[in-house]
Amino acid sequence: MKRVKRPLVGIVMGSDSDLPVMEEAAKVLKDAGVPCEMRVLSAHRAPAETARYGETAASKGLKVLIAGAGGAAHLAGLLAAHSTLPVVGVPLDATRFKGVDSFLSTLQMPPGVPVATVSVGKWGARNAGILALQILALGDRRIASFLKQLKGRLRESVLEKDRQLQESSER
Amino acid sequence: MKRVKRPLVGIVMGSDSDLPVMEEAAKVLKDAGVPCEMRVLSAHRAPAETARYGETAASKGLKVLIAGAGGAAHLAGLLAAHSTLPVVGVPLDATRFKGVDSFLSTLQMPPGVPVATVSVGKWGARNAGILALQILALGDRRIASFLKQLKGRLRESVLEKDRQLQESSER
Amino acid sequence: MKRVKRPLVGIVMGSDSDLPVMEEAAKVLKDAGVPCEMRVLSAHRAPAETARYGETAASKGLKVLIAGAGGAAHLAGLLAAHSTLPVVGVPLDATRFKGVDSFLSTLQMPPGVPVATVSVGKWGARNAGILALQILALGDRRIASFLKQLKGRLRESVLEKDRQLQESSER
Amino acid sequence: MKRVKRPLVGIVMGSDSDLPVMEEAAKVLKDAGVPCEMRVLSAHRAPAETARYGETAASKGLKVLIAGAGGAAHLAGLLAAHSTLPVVGVPLDATRFKGVDSFLSTLQMPPGVPVATVSVGKWGARNAGILALQILALGDRRIASFLKQLKGRLRESVLEKDRQLQESSER
Amino acid sequence: MKRVKRPLVGIVMGSDSDLPVMEEAAKVLKDAGVPCEMRVLSAHRAPAETARYGETAASKGLKVLIAGAGGAAHLAGLLAAHSTLPVVGVPLDATRFKGVDSFLSTLQMPPGVPVATVSVGKWGARNAGILALQILALGDRRIASFLKQLKGRLRESVLEKDRQLQESSER
Amino acid sequence: MKRVKRPLVGIVMGSDSDLPVMEEAAKVLKDAGVPCEMRVLSAHRAPAETARYGETAASKGLKVLIAGAGGAAHLAGLLAAHSTLPVVGVPLDATRFKGVDSFLSTLQMPPGVPVATVSVGKWGARNAGILALQILALGDRRIASFLKQLKGRLRESVLEKDRQLQESSER
Amino acid sequence: MKRVKRPLVGIVMGSDSDLPVMEEAAKVLKDAGVPCEMRVLSAHRAPAETARYGETAASKGLKVLIAGAGGAAHLAGLLAAHSTLPVVGVPLDATRFKGVDSFLSTLQMPPGVPVATVSVGKWGARNAGILALQILALGDRRIASFLKQLKGRLRESVLEKDRQLQESSER
Amino acid sequence: MKRVKRPLVGIVMGSDSDLPVMEEAAKVLKDAGVPCEMRVLSAHRAPAETARYGETAASKGLKVLIAGAGGAAHLAGLLAAHSTLPVVGVPLDATRFKGVDSFLSTLQMPPGVPVATVSVGKWGARNAGILALQILALGDRRIASFLKQLKGRLRESVLEKDRQLQESSER
Repeated sequence: MKRVKRPLVGIVMGSDSDLPVMEEAAKVLKDAGVPCEMRVLSAHRAPAETARYGETAASKGLKVLIAGAGGAAHLAGLLAAHSTLPVVGVPLDATRFKGVDSFLSTLQMPPGVPVATVSVGKWGARNAGILALQILALGDRRIASFLKQLKGRLRESVLEKDRQLQESSER
Repeated sequence: MKRVKRPLVGIVMGSDSDLPVMEEAAKVLKDAGVPCEMRVLSAHRAPAETARYGETAASKGLKVLIAGAGGAAHLAGLLAAHSTLPVVGVPLDATRFKGVDSFLSTLQMPPGVPVATVSVGKWGARNAGILALQILALGDRRIASFLKQLKGRLRESVLEKDRQLQESSER
Repeated sequence: MKRVKRPLVGIVMGSDSDLPVMEEAAKVLKDAGVPCEMRVLSAHRAPAETARYGETAASKGLKVLIAGAGGAAHLAGLLAAHSTLPVVGVPLDATRFKGVDSFLSTLQMPPGVPVATVSVGKWGARNAGILALQILALGDRRIASFLKQLKGRLRESVLEKDRQLQESSER
Repeated sequence: MKRVKRPLVGIVMGSDSDLPVMEEAAKVLKDAGVPCEMRVLSAHRAPAETARYGETAASKGLKVLIAGAGGAAHLAGLLAAHSTLPVVGVPLDATRFKGVDSFLSTLQMPPGVPVATVSVGKWGARNAGILALQILALGDRRIASFLKQLKGRLRESVLEKDRQLQESSER
Repeated sequence: MKRVKRPLVGIVMGSDSDLPVMEEAAKVLKDAGVPCEMRVLSAHRAPAETARYGETAASKGLKVLIAGAGGAAHLAGLLAAHSTLPVVGVPLDATRFKGVDSFLSTLQMPPGVPVATVSVGKWGARNAGILALQILALGDRRIASFLKQLKGRLRESVLEKDRQLQESSER
Repeated sequence: MKRVKRPLVGIVMGSDSDLPVMEEAAKVLKDAGVPCEMRVLSAHRAPAETARYGETAASKGLKVLIAGAGGAAHLAGLLAAHSTLPVVGVPLDATRFKGVDSFLSTLQMPPGVPVATVSVGKWGARNAGILALQILALGDRRIASFLKQLKGRLRESVLEKDRQLQESSER
Repeated sequence: MKRVKRPLVGIVMGSDSDLPVMEEAAKVLKDAGVPCEMRVLSAHRAPAETARYGETAASKGLKVLIAGAGGAAHLAGLLAAHSTLPVVGVPLDATRFKGVDSFLSTLQMPPGVPVATVSVGKWGARNAGILALQILALGDRRIASFLKQLKGRLRESVLEKDRQLQESSER
Repeated sequence: MKRVKRPLVGIVMGSDSDLPVMEEAAKVLKDAGVPCEMRVLSAHRAPAETARYGETAASKGLKVLIAGAGGAAHLAGLLAAHSTLPVVGVPLDATRFKGVDSFLSTLQMPPGVPVATVSVGKWGARNAGILALQILALGDRRIASFLKQLKGRLRESVLEKDRQLQESSER
């Protein structure tokens, strides 16, 4: 039986077409062994359910919310309005404006209701997952250790590519 | 006793500091004899009350909602999510981005949930009031007549300034 | 014989190449049983005809005008200059600037002459149709009922996708 | 009696508040001895008069039209729609967007209806006047000669400032 | 023997790769029977030749210069610096910034040295040709007549498309 | 003796001139009884010290880093490169570009190294403080309770302003 | 007698009103004991003199050119077109577009003709001076040593401010 | 045996996927006979190695550093923070924002730490190589001569294309 552990991170997206992007967040959480749930909700089309999700998130044991939305992206902001959990906003590239509309809608929150905004699209979705891990790692040494290894692997990958480039240049 | 008539237009703003701008909408409605109410609500700080306002607006007799907000302006969008009344969004200039953030947050609504966006700031607030009148005029000849006069006065004002400029040039 | 009913909504576009986008407005009106007409007009290439269309729209029984244009998009503004009907502007993505030029040309109308601007392209065209319905619904219970059902279907669609995503995650 | 000569250039502005900017165009024309007229017209508030101005401009002896407008600046475009005279558009800084809205509304004209757009504000108004002179100079040697002198004075002014700067540096 | 007539319009471009765009200007001039020449010059790679072209243009009988360039587009500005002929600038879409760099480089000329900027790319190139015709028409009735017919054809084309759309809608 | 408790949050800024903005973060932390330290560091002028600060932050007991910087804002990114703690970036308005440069420099981090970006300037600095509290609240009920009260006070403040506006409208 | 040494750096500006900004470049060169000259030249108003300045710069012993200009800033590009010396471009904030026009005009040079662009305004002018020193330092140990001290002082200034902030926080 | 000469220019990129762009810099250096090395480093994933590369660059005999990075491009800035060598920044087009994020992150450096920014992408990479040659040419006549020939070839190529265009037009 799968998912015996209660999810710690809720990954919410405005449409199932956002799944290929938002899965990047789920992947890194899964790699770290952190249970998460993925949900389709919408600030504009299912506002009551979205509000309720925000209101009940903490009591269900969720620790961090990740919300990905495009255009007039209100999803992260609405969750933040209804919860005191950290909310990470991933601006998606869903319109002609390439995410400029979604990141301004996500970033420019008024004082009192922060959204932790990350970069647009897949980069941001992956970083949202890592940011969630960084938050959870404050209370979980295993995750902290995973993050150090991840940072090490990032560094190693750069150094390896550097070696390859130098070798190929020398030939 | 004032305000015996039920308001037909709800003018909602995110903060009382927006009042000097949003009053432009109220002024033109008042000139036309259309009762309206002005409210402070916030998609981020009082989301439940804002949602309820949207849900109950039609049953209270409101016909048009006007919402002014700045920054990550979710107010008009949240009202539109909770109501099928026409919602007019006035992007306000509340941050360093001069309303670019607020108009993208207001304009770029997903299909299914329109917000009728008008120009940024006072121009837009006045136009929101006129747009509300244009909508109400479809069922009220007196308002239709007011709008024709208003259009006539606008035209007259341009022609008068034109005469003055030509006279002053000739001197 | 088709179109026995007089059109209530005029959908105007600057070029027949805009038809695939602007049809989105017509579709939702048709779904609601609201008669509309589609016209090609141009503020720059047929300005007199466009002006006349605006001037005579109300007397022909039209209630709402929807205008889609790209680039230096003057079509909605010109109609609004010649009519006191509500004019909905759909900024089209016709140039390299992806609709930034057309939405600024459409949105930033001076006080006195509002254009109800919606989002760029197909999203906006569909929303223009729905906004027209919201306006007409104030005087037509059948349309009001259609809009409530439409909102319900939008919500259902989100919830259904949410269920599917949760199920597929559990597998 | 002043203004015995028929104006060759029509300088049109959307509001008399634009006069301090648009006078820059009139000044340089006056310096060159070219008669011009200044008019207040509005694509949105007096569209019929604006259209008529465009239609009759050539027959009244006007050779070049200069139009200054801000926001959703349709004035130059509407004149160009109604005339085959060269139309120079001066985008004005009338809104929070510092002329970005007005120059995109002025510049991005569709094929067939050009507007000769110049820089935003006073720089542009002066340049509109000079551009009108450059056009008129093709058929008037006196104006051509004025322009050569103007160019010479511009150059002299730079060289003089250069001398002053070098002298002050040496001290 | 071709080109017995001296060219009246010089069409200059920064690279022969700009030819497919800039030919739009030549086409409309050719349709009007106005002789023009097309040249490759560069403000950055052949600045002396470009300067000389500007300096000698008037004496060679050219009446209007059209310059198309992309990126940091200095070509129109450099010609305007070296000539008192009207210079029309066509901002080209040559970089990732889709012509934003080239139109700002072309448009924002300092007072004293105007460039008549038209829209970006093919639209602009065609409009540059028409603008040149509008300028030449002031001294040539045949061109003036061509322009009126062109305007008429533009209008007819819109009305024809309007008829077709209405017919197809009725079916 | 003050500050017996080790700081949990490090608030870093590129210059002491940023203090009036960044103090907003410190204020809300102080209100919540969370010890923090404020530091001046610079990715460009003291890069080694900044790197060391990032590397040693966790071992000194810091849980969250908040970095405010303007222009080519590399401070938050450099700290994130050297630490696996959550790093909150506050884009400051230090140049002519009003924070557009700083938020793009802060937001657009590559995958693997997230920065939790908040809105520009004072709004963002206060929200950075609240976001830090939201993170710390996951392991501290007292802070969680503070956040709920803060949210309640925000809501109350909106409702109070709403009451005042309605009362003043009725007079 | 002052200025016995031939200038190594030419600082060129489009107008003497740019002097307060461009002096920042001269100041740091003076501090380093590097002789420079300041000139007013203009790509648009004195193009021949500007071209000649570029062509003769190397033979006069100049090693680096610094050019500051605003709007459609062609000055640095024109100098680069006429010289193979390194040209540093300082985009100035001379129009409503806050330097966006000038830095795109300066930065987006075509392949073959680089301009080393620095940040907008005073920051950039000072950095242009330092960049010139970095270039000259490759052949002059005294300048190299000056730059190391400058870097040290920058670092010291940050650390000193950090100490002060910590002290004031502790009080 | 290859590469007996120590590299004079270090070309650094954030990822080996940037190689096709950054090779443009290497190509022109190779054409000029200037030895260079290409390295993969990362301000965010290998910050310590990047810092060390900057610190040791001068002592290893490098004269100019070229850094290409996309997104929140901190690579050039970090090298400039750790070195007094001239650092040329090539903003890469690595995200949806087409290099706007990377050039603002590269360009807007604070006073004291310049980055010589060139145009975005391949144009910029080639220009970075040429700029490095221009810097090295101050102390190397052979490179100075190469640059003059390169400039001559650029000019010849324009003139040749001009001849071809004129010939093809005449046919």
